[in-house]
Amino acid sequence: MVYELPTIKAIGIVRNEFKQPLVGHDWGKVVSDIVVNPSLTEALDSLDEFSHVIVLYWMHQLRPGPPPTKAHPRHNQELPIVGVFATRSPNRPNPIGKATVRLLQRQGNILTVEGLDAVDGTPVIDIKPYIPGYDSVADARVPQWTTNE
Amino acid sequence: MVYELPTIKAIGIVRNEFKQPLVGHDWGKVVSDIVVNPSLTEALDSLDEFSHVIVLYWMHQLRPGPPPTKAHPRHNQELPIVGVFATRSPNRPNPIGKATVRLLQRQGNILTVEGLDAVDGTPVIDIKPYIPGYDSVADARVPQWTTNE
Repeated sequence: MVYELPTIKAIGIVRNEFKQPLVGHDWGKVVSDIVVNPSLTEALDSLDEFSHVIVLYWMHQLRPGPPPTKAHPRHNQELPIVGVFATRSPNRPNPIGKATVRLLQRQGNILTVEGLDAVDGTPVIDIKPYIPGYDSVADARVPQWTTNE
Repeated sequence: MVYELPTIKAIGIVRNEFKQPLVGHDWGKVVSDIVVNPSLTEALDSLDEFSHVIVLYWMHQLRPGPPPTKAHPRHNQELPIVGVFATRSPNRPNPIGKATVRLLQRQGNILTVEGLDAVDGTPVIDIKPYIPGYDSVADARVPQWTTNE
């Protein structure tokens, strides 16, 4: 049942001051540029009518080899080990990250965003508008070991 | 700057009664199974402590050829044409969908979810827990042509 999909392509790249992954770093106020391929500049038109966007990115700095199926949330050994799909660990079968970030500015093919937890050079694979009725849940329940609420 | 990334793999597949894309369909109450590759069963452990999960999937039924850079939101010709990254159109550079769905049940390698807007046979590429502090925005602004609020 596992089959390969057509290869995905980077549509842009993250630029910021962070060259290496930082475990436990607070990315909430980090400002990054997303430099989108110039051929896709007009695909960004009207995006700046949204205050927030969803960024999907490829976590390219991972260690080689198959990812584990279990992990401690947030690398915290004191927390119960759980399935990797129950965590936001970058070390997962497809190393795709998903961040909801504030869009500060769009200038041509460059988006300036706040709160993107990706290092400099990270390939971006998709950008979507954040739409509360589609992306937000009013009554979500999370386990006690999830502190990022 | 556009470069190819390592090929992604399906980690599971969507099973439901919808065999073809339905434009404008309300998927809110559609119940689907996500059949995860059995080799990844334990990667789902503890996921059912979350009420909602984020599903990333590969929209494999798209027409061939390069996607447009502009689109009418929700295929509605009466709405202003905007950049494709300002829409949730499936016809985008990387046809990756993102849905936040209610997790009804996990049994072994099968997740039963409500609200997944993907047809039968859709490859799933990632599953993440929905964490409000990370995935939800309290003060998001959207343009008037976005009605799904």
